Amino acid sequence: MNELKTKSLKFHIGGKFAVSSKVRLDSREDLSLAYSPGVAYPSLEIAADPDRAYLYTSKKNTVAVISDGSAVLGLGDVGPLAALPVMEGKCLLFKKFAGIDAIPIVLNTKDTEEIIKTVQILEPSFGGINLEDIAFPRCVEIEQRLIETLDIPVFHDDQRGTAVVTAAALISACKLADKKFPELTIAMLGLGAAGTSIARLLKAMGVGKIYACNSRGIVSKKKPLIPLVEELVNSGIIDSYDDYQNDSIEEIVAGADVFIGVSRGNLLSPEAVNKMGDRPIVFALANPDPEISLADIKKTKAYIYATGRSDYPNQINNVLAFPGIFRGALDAGYKKITERMCVTAAEAIANLVAPDRLSPGYIIPSVFEADVVRAVSEAIKRSEDGK
Amino acid sequence: MNELKTKSLKFHIGGKFAVSSKVRLDSREDLSLAYSPGVAYPSLEIAADPDRAYLYTSKKNTVAVISDGSAVLGLGDVGPLAALPVMEGKCLLFKKFAGIDAIPIVLNTKDTEEIIKTVQILEPSFGGINLEDIAFPRCVEIEQRLIETLDIPVFHDDQRGTAVVTAAALISACKLADKKFPELTIAMLGLGAAGTSIARLLKAMGVGKIYACNSRGIVSKKKPLIPLVEELVNSGIIDSYDDYQNDSIEEIVAGADVFIGVSRGNLLSPEAVNKMGDRPIVFALANPDPEISLADIKKTKAYIYATGRSDYPNQINNVLAFPGIFRGALDAGYKKITERMCVTAAEAIANLVAPDRLSPGYIIPSVFEADVVRAVSEAIKRSEDGK
Repeated sequence: MNELKTKSLKFHIGGKFAVSSKVRLDSREDLSLAYSPGVAYPSLEIAADPDRAYLYTSKKNTVAVISDGSAVLGLGDVGPLAALPVMEGKCLLFKKFAGIDAIPIVLNTKDTEEIIKTVQILEPSFGGINLEDIAFPRCVEIEQRLIETLDIPVFHDDQRGTAVVTAAALISACKLADKKFPELTIAMLGLGAAGTSIARLLKAMGVGKIYACNSRGIVSKKKPLIPLVEELVNSGIIDSYDDYQNDSIEEIVAGADVFIGVSRGNLLSPEAVNKMGDRPIVFALANPDPEISLADIKKTKAYIYATGRSDYPNQINNVLAFPGIFRGALDAGYKKITERMCVTAAEAIANLVAPDRLSPGYIIPSVFEADVVRAVSEAIKRSEDGK
Repeated sequence: MNELKTKSLKFHIGGKFAVSSKVRLDSREDLSLAYSPGVAYPSLEIAADPDRAYLYTSKKNTVAVISDGSAVLGLGDVGPLAALPVMEGKCLLFKKFAGIDAIPIVLNTKDTEEIIKTVQILEPSFGGINLEDIAFPRCVEIEQRLIETLDIPVFHDDQRGTAVVTAAALISACKLADKKFPELTIAMLGLGAAGTSIARLLKAMGVGKIYACNSRGIVSKKKPLIPLVEELVNSGIIDSYDDYQNDSIEEIVAGADVFIGVSRGNLLSPEAVNKMGDRPIVFALANPDPEISLADIKKTKAYIYATGRSDYPNQINNVLAFPGIFRGALDAGYKKITERMCVTAAEAIANLVAPDRLSPGYIIPSVFEADVVRAVSEAIKRSEDGK
């Protein structure tokens, strides 16, 4: 058994999640306030004005971390019970980084309609919903329908959280490489939850061209496409690449300014990177093995290299985004987390990198830098978009 | 504004419920164990053997407190949001008395099938389900169907919790009054969640006769009855009282050994109590105003008087039962909380009253007595019924 496994299993015995009280419960009087008969008063206040739930309950600081366990990072469809340790961990990140009381919820269904209905029924319990590790493409419909129907913020972290941090890193990388968003050509490998959401956000931020390749090859109008990808092409979020010959990732990478991989390990060759444009930016975000390894990238002309790994420089880590985004949205009482707020969050994260520290090995702050959550939440709160 | 209201509203600002971590999260290594990549190992262990969720997650110590807000104590159908302070309070009682991590969940539906389906979908998240403040009669079907279909303990506290504590008090009261269960005649006022469940449990414990009266008058085979009450009559849990004349509670109280009221305040007159049998036992459990007040009961021949109030002697309080019942069921890994376990719990609570302390003013322990939860949970664990 490897050392991490041994340590992790020991670490997890008894679980990680617990509940605590914000109030004293030492005397009979405390009980008469917290429960019968005193609890009737806040209940009646809320019955008269539902908004007072934000004053007299923990709703304002509570987020449900909800998964069906169908797309757990690095593990795939392990089911709800096996996803529970991941959701407990995510809840602890919410608490640690943003002081948010997050509750792990795993669902005994993978049916899109049942998931949507369940979250709608749970809505009054929480101040926000963080969807997690739900398989593509149903995660897109689930997030969208819940955003439309709920009066509390809904955010699928694997989609928009990843997009925010990737966009933040790209802002910094382009400053260094002296590239402008409208002039960029991006080659994207992988078009799942993360890839489609990154493409949406970057196009909303004015990126020029995004060509994409997934397990079916290069995305082109000349091919039959799954409905969601077809919609992205028709709306100009993914650019159709029609002159392909071998139908491989190498073709769209050749000449591109940026490679963004959200697929699987070791799919990008050093030769392909060397055919990119000047000062190429390579975001190889597959976990745990990036699309091109640190050893291999060193053999190439790549100017900037970022991954999802904590032991490499430039970690694109969702922990930079979701705590501050939810902190800001809850504090401001927003009903939605909008695309504009995601742009704002990406800019705030990028702005945390001081110009004099910005370098190819430091384009994005570490999750342990103290200002991240505050900066993101303040930026979100200044946005007036989520009311 | 009265003093309790002022204090309670102030007490509730910001809510009462919070989340905490059982593990340290101070370093990058801690994060790598609690979340990616270390969390993959417990996930894989659980995927291989679902029972390991009880080892590597908090499931074993987690109970959901679930309500639709349709029958909140003393308030009625205030809806899910207004019920949230009550559920938060209940969760704190679970933590305070039994060390259980309980999570408040309020549901945006009152539909029986939707409630059942939602709880079934939530099942993997929790080690047990405490249903709370759901209207009668659908609460009966909801509890029963969930018991049948879930592999974790399900307990509607307003039904079976109340029944356990009432039965415990009746055991003690009968010792004092020198009455035997098989020879008892009980007059019950109110046939909702509590009344029907008390009748079931007491009959299972061998009580002789239970006559009942609700808002439609005395229960009799001679009348049309709602299906659930008809079933109770047909199965001999409620005895049919056919010789009624005025169709009032006074008729079944006359000559009875025991009155149990789970209805509304001030429905029992001192005159009616004086027509009961020898050394009558009066449990006037309506909240906040009992069926007969302390001032009025003093004018009668009542031998023992118990209520739901904390400022009167002999408080019949569910806090005596549910923490220990769930503690025992979770510790033992039971899949059900059975009727036999409820009998065991009632006997354990009654046995906590030492024979030399037993008196008409002390038939049941206070919720603050240290041994209650331990005694109940140990009794539950000794039962082999819930496997």
